[in-house]
Amino acid sequence: MRMVDLIQKKRDGFSLTKKEIDFIVGGFTGGAIPDYQMSAFLMAVYFQGMDMQENTYLTMAMVNSGDIMDLSGIQGIKVDKHSTGGVGDKTSLIVGPLAAAAGVPVAKISGRGLGHTGGTIDKLESIEGFHVELSREEFVEQVNRYKIAIVSQTGNLTPADKKLYALRDVTATVNSIPLIASSIMSKKIASGADAIVLDVKVGSGAFMKTLPDARKLAKTMVQISKGLNKKTIAIITDMCQPLGYEVGNANEVKEAIEVLNGRGEAGLVKVCLTVAAHMTVAGGIYADFKRAYNALAEMLSGGEAMYKFEQFIRAQGGRAAVVNNPDLLPQAQNNMEVKSDAAGYVQSIAADAVGTAAMLLGAGRKIKDEQIDNAAGISLKRKVGDEVRPGDVLAVLHSNRTINPQISQMLSQSFVIGPRRPEEVPVVYDVIE
Amino acid sequence: MRMVDLIQKKRDGFSLTKKEIDFIVGGFTGGAIPDYQMSAFLMAVYFQGMDMQENTYLTMAMVNSGDIMDLSGIQGIKVDKHSTGGVGDKTSLIVGPLAAAAGVPVAKISGRGLGHTGGTIDKLESIEGFHVELSREEFVEQVNRYKIAIVSQTGNLTPADKKLYALRDVTATVNSIPLIASSIMSKKIASGADAIVLDVKVGSGAFMKTLPDARKLAKTMVQISKGLNKKTIAIITDMCQPLGYEVGNANEVKEAIEVLNGRGEAGLVKVCLTVAAHMTVAGGIYADFKRAYNALAEMLSGGEAMYKFEQFIRAQGGRAAVVNNPDLLPQAQNNMEVKSDAAGYVQSIAADAVGTAAMLLGAGRKIKDEQIDNAAGISLKRKVGDEVRPGDVLAVLHSNRTINPQISQMLSQSFVIGPRRPEEVPVVYDVIE
Repeated sequence: MRMVDLIQKKRDGFSLTKKEIDFIVGGFTGGAIPDYQMSAFLMAVYFQGMDMQENTYLTMAMVNSGDIMDLSGIQGIKVDKHSTGGVGDKTSLIVGPLAAAAGVPVAKISGRGLGHTGGTIDKLESIEGFHVELSREEFVEQVNRYKIAIVSQTGNLTPADKKLYALRDVTATVNSIPLIASSIMSKKIASGADAIVLDVKVGSGAFMKTLPDARKLAKTMVQISKGLNKKTIAIITDMCQPLGYEVGNANEVKEAIEVLNGRGEAGLVKVCLTVAAHMTVAGGIYADFKRAYNALAEMLSGGEAMYKFEQFIRAQGGRAAVVNNPDLLPQAQNNMEVKSDAAGYVQSIAADAVGTAAMLLGAGRKIKDEQIDNAAGISLKRKVGDEVRPGDVLAVLHSNRTINPQISQMLSQSFVIGPRRPEEVPVVYDVIE
Repeated sequence: MRMVDLIQKKRDGFSLTKKEIDFIVGGFTGGAIPDYQMSAFLMAVYFQGMDMQENTYLTMAMVNSGDIMDLSGIQGIKVDKHSTGGVGDKTSLIVGPLAAAAGVPVAKISGRGLGHTGGTIDKLESIEGFHVELSREEFVEQVNRYKIAIVSQTGNLTPADKKLYALRDVTATVNSIPLIASSIMSKKIASGADAIVLDVKVGSGAFMKTLPDARKLAKTMVQISKGLNKKTIAIITDMCQPLGYEVGNANEVKEAIEVLNGRGEAGLVKVCLTVAAHMTVAGGIYADFKRAYNALAEMLSGGEAMYKFEQFIRAQGGRAAVVNNPDLLPQAQNNMEVKSDAAGYVQSIAADAVGTAAMLLGAGRKIKDEQIDNAAGISLKRKVGDEVRPGDVLAVLHSNRTINPQISQMLSQSFVIGPRRPEEVPVVYDVIE
């Protein structure tokens, strides 16, 4: 088998066999297939796509390139949750404790932020003392005890995906649905969960800019999981504007605490309840979605979810007092208001621009392993549909650095203000299973 | 400027500016842009193509990556000739002396064979003593004195093209019209000719398998030359079967001598006269194509072209006696007849399979710098339109190695024999200028 022939086969639109895909992934991970052939192959996949069979083979080849987490020591149906990445996406901080409070074992491996999107691990680390690294034994024990643990990726899971992603990032082959789908699904499968709930974001702040693309990605991932007998449900949610009011790290934890206190923005609450409800149904706790949704809503208002969150923070060494006193979270020295020049209604807020502005304030990283400023971020004061008058504060920028006025301008431009109140769009578009 | 953004720009179908293309070619040649980004870019070009402006920029960027031959010491309008490569393509051996005999200065740089296609330099080297390497001064002097010199590529011409071609070869990005066009045109322009006649082959043995593709390639190259003020004429000729009867090296020289003696297969003679006639018109020797064609036909039958060939061989140190006694050329020890099982008429002869068979006999190379056997090759005994009966000899295989019977089978299968005499197809399809 020669790699050049397989590149040509894909280039010409033919489907690859399991043997061929194993050869490509194994050869690339082991170093026998050079980067320059792999990147040509990736670009051919970008244009020609992959069928479901190929996509499943690719996913499994990546899973098999490394270790698979052994979570058999955890009692119950382990349900994982994954978001395709957005701006202000603090759902894991809320959904994790919520599903755990209902009795689902949540054994979650999360990532750090890169570019305009944040990461759950960075957010958790803004809580003083919080450890994100646990041994497998500690991880399993904590989940058995408290039903929840969230750690940063450890061990040698899907090394093929890591190597592939690094190459895709510099060769303009990130935005390919089969490649995104296999990347996500391989990581989730290697993480050892029994069932997976996917939160597929759509809109300006997401990988998928359009609803048809988001649907396609969701369907692809659900199909892959069917081929591998892993129950997977994909929920398509809105990312036409940041989720909730806060974008950053410490401020997102603060907003999560508000939601867990039974308050919080309606859209954010709805996304969290929808994701958590599907998790509890998949986990065999409730018989159907509606029942689950209502029960979980009560756990928010009743304080059970909050209690679980506190337990979870304490279990991983974090300062649990933040739950009652969120001002103990890191706060930025510099805070700059961004005011509106225009009058009217907010039509849209370019989530990717807000994410990039937050990154530039220090809340995120341009390149891997960069240090971040936990207190940096953005608090939105107006959201889509809100009325604004000239001089109204649209947002507040937070940073421990001197704030560059260009960031304020960037944020101001991310708001589109028009004369009429825009029609409401759903926060949850679709559920695919 | 970042390469990843330029890959994305091309991936999304946008046109690149001169500055961007110079950045890519310069960066790649100098090593600042890694192979893995270049190969992703090449695959994006494969799918999205290039417009004429981009193609011209790419051609000039490759020309400017190395030296440009200074042929200003040669008197007259220097006309170069290039074939896109075929099987049994000995036209340069005939057209060169023919155009030179008519007074056109032919200062030609030729290549070696690779894969199923042969190369003029290999064919010339089958003549004992023939040197293919001359200094620039010797080259210029010989052209001024005898109107013809053919050398293998020397100096540092188009290093970008060499590096690019090596990468395309292993990443399934060879068959892209803009990349083929810029590669050919950059080499021709760097070779210093004033005008160029292109012989674009179409059919099973050629890069271009279909007439629309061949036309597109021809038009692209002519358009590039217009943007650079180099007179270029492209002739589209048939490669649905090998050209002439001989495929190899020494045996092709022998067939060239026959043509220069005023004999030779009609199709081969027509291609040679057409190419040479356009060269002499471009060189200002004759007023129009028809006059040129008739005058050159007389030079074939009258012996002037042959005399020029002899002069040319002697000038480059070759044993000129081969002209009168072609049996002095290397002859193979093993010769195997391939006979027909079927009765009927030859419908087609898969030229690429014949070329590959010749390579396997030792006449060509699978990889660069391999040694070849000058005496190896194939003599076809039947061509398209000929009647065959069972037991008739279709071809004779020549080699100094033991001939593998699989090669005989391969050759036998390259002949398609059917019940009716096929309709005649033209040898020259079109002329684009």
